Amino acid sequence: MPADSDQAGSSDRQHMARALELAQQGLGHVEPNPLVGCVVVQGDKVVGQGWHAQFGGPHAERAALKDAGDAARGAIAYVTLEPCCHTGKTPPCTEALIDAGMKRVVIGAADPNPQVSGGGVSALRDAGIEVDEGVLSEQAEELIAPFAKLQTTGQPWVIAKWAMTLDGKLATRTGSSQWISNEQSRAVVHELRGRMDAIVVGRQTALVDDPLLTARPVGARTPTRVVLDSQASLPLESQLVHTVDQAPIVVVCSSKAPAERRTALEANGVDVWAVAGEEHATRLNNMLQEMGRRQWTNILVEGGAQLLGSLFDAQAIDEVHAFIAPKLAGGAAAPSPLAGTGLNHMPTEGLRNVQIQILENNIYISGRC
Amino acid sequence: MPADSDQAGSSDRQHMARALELAQQGLGHVEPNPLVGCVVVQGDKVVGQGWHAQFGGPHAERAALKDAGDAARGAIAYVTLEPCCHTGKTPPCTEALIDAGMKRVVIGAADPNPQVSGGGVSALRDAGIEVDEGVLSEQAEELIAPFAKLQTTGQPWVIAKWAMTLDGKLATRTGSSQWISNEQSRAVVHELRGRMDAIVVGRQTALVDDPLLTARPVGARTPTRVVLDSQASLPLESQLVHTVDQAPIVVVCSSKAPAERRTALEANGVDVWAVAGEEHATRLNNMLQEMGRRQWTNILVEGGAQLLGSLFDAQAIDEVHAFIAPKLAGGAAAPSPLAGTGLNHMPTEGLRNVQIQILENNIYISGRC
Repeated sequence: MPADSDQAGSSDRQHMARALELAQQGLGHVEPNPLVGCVVVQGDKVVGQGWHAQFGGPHAERAALKDAGDAARGAIAYVTLEPCCHTGKTPPCTEALIDAGMKRVVIGAADPNPQVSGGGVSALRDAGIEVDEGVLSEQAEELIAPFAKLQTTGQPWVIAKWAMTLDGKLATRTGSSQWISNEQSRAVVHELRGRMDAIVVGRQTALVDDPLLTARPVGARTPTRVVLDSQASLPLESQLVHTVDQAPIVVVCSSKAPAERRTALEANGVDVWAVAGEEHATRLNNMLQEMGRRQWTNILVEGGAQLLGSLFDAQAIDEVHAFIAPKLAGGAAAPSPLAGTGLNHMPTEGLRNVQIQILENNIYISGRC
Repeated sequence: MPADSDQAGSSDRQHMARALELAQQGLGHVEPNPLVGCVVVQGDKVVGQGWHAQFGGPHAERAALKDAGDAARGAIAYVTLEPCCHTGKTPPCTEALIDAGMKRVVIGAADPNPQVSGGGVSALRDAGIEVDEGVLSEQAEELIAPFAKLQTTGQPWVIAKWAMTLDGKLATRTGSSQWISNEQSRAVVHELRGRMDAIVVGRQTALVDDPLLTARPVGARTPTRVVLDSQASLPLESQLVHTVDQAPIVVVCSSKAPAERRTALEANGVDVWAVAGEEHATRLNNMLQEMGRRQWTNILVEGGAQLLGSLFDAQAIDEVHAFIAPKLAGGAAAPSPLAGTGLNHMPTEGLRNVQIQILENNIYISGRC
């Protein structure tokens, strides 16, 4: 019975919406695992709620079943993602649902891994449990999009962040950019950083802004600070190198970067990745592959315009977080967020999942590409 | 007694706020006169309300006094702008207030014309009326800022308008720009146009977009469509020239523009202004002077980036209306709203009177420079 339609009962959608909400609480804590939420319902009553809260910790289904206790027998479980049927850090969730005596299991998104997809559903059906798939599937798929990308492409979810003036500038023509956005906007950026695997900037940004790129206050994880720097020229006196004990630093250079620069950086605790490729775009792609190999799920690219533009041209930006301040900088030579080549035709469709928030006199817009 | 402070009673401020609100209703109808509102209060009760509704029609004070009738005697009048004491199209308002037997008159902004300023207050005081000045003076001055600018500088209030992508682009690198903003944003632009004396664009915008630049539906006034076009090269086949019967067109050219082009345009009903000046900036300034001579109070400059940038560099932009769509265009060569030279240092202060409105998935931000 296809449930992702008008046939899906409004109560099914309501419970799934709650499960999606619960799942969000794992943001930043569970990666590279997916965010998952689960609600157990007996009759009309929610008897158990759970979510995957921590990498290595119990999955959402087990958490919700534990919360429900004996009330789980003969109940319906709403799970945002197809339950796993293999043993990883924890035993399979299908087993837990079968053991608990579920009558019915309602699923949001299918497992994005094509080799696993459908396995959870089959295991449940084989045990005589009624299974409905695809309830609020769009939202459920958006929820796990970073996980799904890593699973299917081997690359992390790339989030572009910028703060710009009302005339679309990242800085004045002289490079002056502190501060475009207000304190509230900057606090949101620090929150974002705190759930990332990496914060990435280009060489120019590292040189001109001499940033720290740490999350202040610290968040769920400590992102690695990554500088794209083909010649490995990051100064040893930079704030980044000086604070290597606060968070790891990676310099991504070309294989032609001077050996003595690489050695000097490594001697100061910097991890140096010499990535193959003559072209900047190839090296970018190889960097993303290497990040994927390390199971990095989310990376935040904070500029500058060259790096962001290269990623846009490579269709490698998955999500945007933009902060707009009601200031004017002017200047044809002042950088705007995306340099590079750009599109020829103005797109008809915009970003999806657009969120707009007013932070005093700043505007915070996010959306997915 | 200075009233623009904590000493100003909250009821004084409340009545003045209402008068400011009333004044807004004249927007687009009264220019080149100022927007003025008036509230007549007897005891605690508002007994009369009025505003300047139409150029040539009664001033706010007379409208409010008429509304109050006999209840005006011994009452307090709250006027957003110092009452006039000279005979123009209508007899002086000070006379009306004196004749009506006001006990007290509370004033928002002083007359911005230094030769007239204070005259209204003196006339009232000479007649034994208690006068308090400067209640909500900041708001009252903002209300009449376009009028004040025309009075004091002889130039119109310059409003810059643009629609841009979330990455700050007016168009793609190939010039594709239709449509960046959504229907609601475009409806707001048409409302704005309908209260302007002129809609101004640069030559490139006129050529590439071939726009109509009319207000649809028509508003309080029919703006003149102005093209800055040093060589008077606007094609006779353009939509603008074809619709010269719908709204006047002015081509602003240099005195060196080919005579045959000027004649051809004039033969097609276009008004040609040959403005003096070798430099673009000088010609811009002379154009604004000419507009001021014609008592144009508000002009809307809709682009492109070159024209808007030149105006910004000349510090000639007074107000900005920006529309942001959650789309990305990319490209270092794609125009961003303000070309020209721009600032060296990122300003600490932003625009004032910032208004933010969410129009579905577009964001509409306005503010004053």
